[in-house]
Amino acid sequence: MSSSSAASGRDDRDGTAGGRPPMREALVAAAFRLFLERGYEQTTVDDIVALAGVGRRSFFRYFPSKEDVVFPDHERCLADMTAFLAASGEEHEPLARVCDAARLVMRLYTENPAFSVQRYRLTKQVPGLRAYELSVVWRYERAFAEYLRGRFAGRPDGTLRADVIAAAVVAAHNNALRSWLRSDGEGDASDAVDRALGYVQSAFGEPAPAPPAETPEDVVVVVSRRGAPLWRVVQEIESTLARD
Amino acid sequence: MSSSSAASGRDDRDGTAGGRPPMREALVAAAFRLFLERGYEQTTVDDIVALAGVGRRSFFRYFPSKEDVVFPDHERCLADMTAFLAASGEEHEPLARVCDAARLVMRLYTENPAFSVQRYRLTKQVPGLRAYELSVVWRYERAFAEYLRGRFAGRPDGTLRADVIAAAVVAAHNNALRSWLRSDGEGDASDAVDRALGYVQSAFGEPAPAPPAETPEDVVVVVSRRGAPLWRVVQEIESTLARD
Repeated sequence: MSSSSAASGRDDRDGTAGGRPPMREALVAAAFRLFLERGYEQTTVDDIVALAGVGRRSFFRYFPSKEDVVFPDHERCLADMTAFLAASGEEHEPLARVCDAARLVMRLYTENPAFSVQRYRLTKQVPGLRAYELSVVWRYERAFAEYLRGRFAGRPDGTLRADVIAAAVVAAHNNALRSWLRSDGEGDASDAVDRALGYVQSAFGEPAPAPPAETPEDVVVVVSRRGAPLWRVVQEIESTLARD
Repeated sequence: MSSSSAASGRDDRDGTAGGRPPMREALVAAAFRLFLERGYEQTTVDDIVALAGVGRRSFFRYFPSKEDVVFPDHERCLADMTAFLAASGEEHEPLARVCDAARLVMRLYTENPAFSVQRYRLTKQVPGLRAYELSVVWRYERAFAEYLRGRFAGRPDGTLRADVIAAAVVAAHNNALRSWLRSDGEGDASDAVDRALGYVQSAFGEPAPAPPAETPEDVVVVVSRRGAPLWRVVQEIESTLARD
């Protein structure tokens, strides 16, 4: 606590300091070092700001609560993703577009594997963080669903399709991402996520447009029991050919 | 607060009283009356026990927290559902079984429409209850996923399929149930849930077992351009028939 008041005095100085890692990054780094050393519950915001050498006000300028420092990039990612979906046009196949949006989340994790793995372990241990993560996941799912509802407007059961597909995309993405996190960030998360999303696309994807049907004039199909006498088969062919 | 200490004195007496609605029901009824009158945040556990005429200890005997009184039946329902899935055999098609398990949750809502609609409105207004509900939904989804993972063990991408299908079932169920709750419990929730689950089954259901293929001896199929001369068609049939 005494270190906290000492740190408070340095608040403004840090706010204007340049040439070293941004204060926000320093706070995240300090927080995770303490979470890993002492445990999440045992670490206070005062401890974090003392280690980072900044004041409490600086912490709360960036993070509304201690939980938020564990997920420092999701607000930005949600905003990016929402903007990405809002920038979609009619030319984008809706499900493929949502899968691309999910890949933005994946990249948030894969651009810093060590941090992502640390956070995954932490989140598994702390029920409060698990609840926080569920609310983050829910917000991604709603962003997907809102986009799809817009694209499916006017279709029968449009909101149902939108909600189900959004949930399936999130579940597939998270299945692949969590496997990667459990393996300590080894292997190619991108391949795994692609395969997982491919499964959803195979279940819900629009069927590829059918090749133009051959015109009925082109082909005669005769199905006949092999035991049928040849004359019957020929008669059938003749009568079919004669039909126009 | 004074009413709370008065109520505490009645704790043991109420615990053994018979012949009126069970104390648990009385606590739920009192809680909802106050939540609707004053708002959820403005109602304390002391207020609830005072109105119900019981003591604090009675409340906490049934409900670990104020949030739990809002969802008084989910623990039982989760237990019932887990038991239902655990009692499944190889004869149950896994996806159909999970859909039946989801219907158990629906019935929890439809057996008391007025209460369910009240709670739906309350949950929409109170962020803390929304978070609680997300964690309940997550537990249902995990129960479905665990069951499906068991059934899909050994299949390629078994856990992926299990997680995605579990999420899709939950989303479909909730889409239909929420429509029903938004319409103040009018109409047939059961039909809506059936249709929603039917959509998931159409996306992920096992294809019906193919009818036994006709033995190759039975049928000859000839595909021919309609423009082909008849003699070429007959020649083709003859050579096919001669092939064994």
